[in-house]
Amino acid sequence: MQYEEKTTLIICEFISHLKYENISYPVIEKTRICLLDYLGASFVGMQSQEAALVREYVRTIGGKPQSSVFGMAEKTSMPLAAQVNGVTCHAYELDDAHRYATGLHPGATIIPAVLALGEHLSSSWHDLLVAIVAGYEMAGRVGRAINPSHRYRGFHSTGTVASLGAAAACSRLLGLGAEKTAWAAGIAGSSAGGIFAFLAEGSMNKLLHAGSAALNGVNAALLAQKGFTGPTSVLEGKEGFCRAFSDDYDLQKITRALGGRYEIEDTYFKRHASCGQAFGAIDAILEMREEIKVDQSEIRRITVYTFRAAAVLDQKQPDTIRRAKFSIPFVTALALLKGRVGHFDFTTALLQDSDIIALADKVEVLEDEGISSNFPEKRTAVVTLELLDGTIVSRKVDIPRGMPENPLSTEELTDKFTELSSSMVGLKRSKWIVKCVLSDEPEENIYSLMSSV
Amino acid sequence: MQYEEKTTLIICEFISHLKYENISYPVIEKTRICLLDYLGASFVGMQSQEAALVREYVRTIGGKPQSSVFGMAEKTSMPLAAQVNGVTCHAYELDDAHRYATGLHPGATIIPAVLALGEHLSSSWHDLLVAIVAGYEMAGRVGRAINPSHRYRGFHSTGTVASLGAAAACSRLLGLGAEKTAWAAGIAGSSAGGIFAFLAEGSMNKLLHAGSAALNGVNAALLAQKGFTGPTSVLEGKEGFCRAFSDDYDLQKITRALGGRYEIEDTYFKRHASCGQAFGAIDAILEMREEIKVDQSEIRRITVYTFRAAAVLDQKQPDTIRRAKFSIPFVTALALLKGRVGHFDFTTALLQDSDIIALADKVEVLEDEGISSNFPEKRTAVVTLELLDGTIVSRKVDIPRGMPENPLSTEELTDKFTELSSSMVGLKRSKWIVKCVLSDEPEENIYSLMSSV
Repeated sequence: MQYEEKTTLIICEFISHLKYENISYPVIEKTRICLLDYLGASFVGMQSQEAALVREYVRTIGGKPQSSVFGMAEKTSMPLAAQVNGVTCHAYELDDAHRYATGLHPGATIIPAVLALGEHLSSSWHDLLVAIVAGYEMAGRVGRAINPSHRYRGFHSTGTVASLGAAAACSRLLGLGAEKTAWAAGIAGSSAGGIFAFLAEGSMNKLLHAGSAALNGVNAALLAQKGFTGPTSVLEGKEGFCRAFSDDYDLQKITRALGGRYEIEDTYFKRHASCGQAFGAIDAILEMREEIKVDQSEIRRITVYTFRAAAVLDQKQPDTIRRAKFSIPFVTALALLKGRVGHFDFTTALLQDSDIIALADKVEVLEDEGISSNFPEKRTAVVTLELLDGTIVSRKVDIPRGMPENPLSTEELTDKFTELSSSMVGLKRSKWIVKCVLSDEPEENIYSLMSSV
Repeated sequence: MQYEEKTTLIICEFISHLKYENISYPVIEKTRICLLDYLGASFVGMQSQEAALVREYVRTIGGKPQSSVFGMAEKTSMPLAAQVNGVTCHAYELDDAHRYATGLHPGATIIPAVLALGEHLSSSWHDLLVAIVAGYEMAGRVGRAINPSHRYRGFHSTGTVASLGAAAACSRLLGLGAEKTAWAAGIAGSSAGGIFAFLAEGSMNKLLHAGSAALNGVNAALLAQKGFTGPTSVLEGKEGFCRAFSDDYDLQKITRALGGRYEIEDTYFKRHASCGQAFGAIDAILEMREEIKVDQSEIRRITVYTFRAAAVLDQKQPDTIRRAKFSIPFVTALALLKGRVGHFDFTTALLQDSDIIALADKVEVLEDEGISSNFPEKRTAVVTLELLDGTIVSRKVDIPRGMPENPLSTEELTDKFTELSSSMVGLKRSKWIVKCVLSDEPEENIYSLMSSV
């Protein structure tokens, strides 16, 4: 607990001066991959029931035709487009996440806000990329500073912290300058919310956290632009965001060495279509499956020792696909049986599959305090298979694949995009989109990609 | 800390079955007064810069013409109308507040949500009143259950708790039934936010808390109606609202003796146009002023001993009207000099008035732990005047005027309404509005009152 003077203004000053020319090429490349990954998750996400319901809601209340929405022929207002697209991208747990800021999904929150605003403003490709870097920077730093305590209190960084990220990104795109960027942060941080209550019942509203953060960011930046003030000490203030939302935070993480390493470099991409906290367990199972060729009929018990934020994902018999994606017993059973945990593997039929039900029932998920104490530097899972004949096989994964230290290759990530999007837009169009998004100067208006379907 | 099973469902079940016929006449009368007080605050609030900025924002993004907005000829969508009207009502610190739930302004949050929805649905007068009672019930109970710890963490119940209240009210108006009302509560409670960071700089965004809560409530109820789910254990869940937002809460306060006494009976009305936490100090000064006729030139020092949430209002030289309303030194000086702390007394010129500046400079505001420990049952201020000749005069107020135990009369409240509204709509129209709002069957469509100006 401490008061670091002008924390908010220092980071907002930095963000308001971010320029394309000053950002290194690898960071720009990573940003393009984030955008590609965003689009892939969104192309399938638009088929979700949740996105359809939010589109229907938006049609009920209306808005000026300013920005495109995945799955809607007509445009809607900037904030509503940001909201629907946030829900859409986050719908199937395929979108990117932050390596250290627990529960933070920057892509599903910052990118839809930037695209909604950018489309109406006709922002340039380079300005979009800079705004995205700015948003990831704010969200990543604040998310690191207040987590994991923020998560332990029950807060979901994708609703809370990401609102600040989306506001910072939109402020950069609007060119607001340091003070108004701080007002926007103040407005967004003062209205942001999001709790993990959804977990108990697998409620749809988890996705709305992403949508609301995107909408909050657009709102906050547009209001600040008009002269509506927010507190410029929102992060560090004694009645500020960090103190309210966390019991143990470090404000220095927000301002230390700005411009050295960028937060977007600490984004990880999802190899599996499940909650990211389950990745260590899934990777461990996949490695063992590859090497020891265990048949499921030989298994007596599977035990997963992991960190606290993962150990809560211990539900044995999920009754919806969303809950299945947040069930380590289910996803580890799926990994062992099918050798993959991909988006198209999660079918309603699978929830009734007797093999997977029987196997999931044998999985115990336990917190190991030693492992918890190393989180988030390590996201360890130790998985032990106990066979009927008494053999015990164990595997430990500290850094799952997809993390920056153990990354998926650009080819793996474009394959992920192609698999997800080609079912919707066809393979030819998929490849064309990859080419556009990964290029320095896309041959196609980037906003039109959203209307591909 | 405890888990009271089905807390959310129990209160939502109660709310979904609330009927006009089962609510006692005094409660209905109080509800009408709340509505009248809401309208009075809004008629002047629409002149505020903040409301004008939010109207401008709404014009930028647009929405279907569904509901009326104070100060706008054209209608906008239900959620945006609720948002603007929430900001408008809360603009000048004239709106009602809850006696026990620290920082909760139910009128500025629940009523605009109900009116925005009701206008589009053409809801009846009686249905509106029942929905308002329902909203106050949810907000009051949740606000009581988690405060004052919620306030001490830095949260503003007008953004957080009131979102749940607005969602409950809108759910009642839509006739959603218990489960969908719980979904709406789950959605609203999972996206609600609001912190006191505004206090440090007197930022405008405080008003947005009221607007956002109203908007959240409308959103949540409309989404739940369409089948979008939220967690039905949002209040009591181990990753739920109460635990996340408070360190010390009592879930039993949410469900105990439902239908006995209504929360709306614990609403208090503002006699003074300042933060309600300052009322004890102002009342004490006014009483002394009346009885002992002290001249300001004779005063050496004024000391105010009060409870924690009031003692933070200790800024001596406010530079904006908003900060002046949150400065006990300023408002007590104003009370002593002018004999009143009314809306029209707060002028920009007053901020430069040398008499008031000199007098405010002599005021010390201090927390007294004994007084804090009795809050919110008592909202005590002990004010001591030390005169130049050494005389010490002291006055203690435990329950300021306007509180349910020390209420303003209906005549005083209609006078307040008339003073505020007649400057905008003329005396004749003011009196007609009072007659309509306080009657069993208004002769005028209640929604048209918003377009009076």
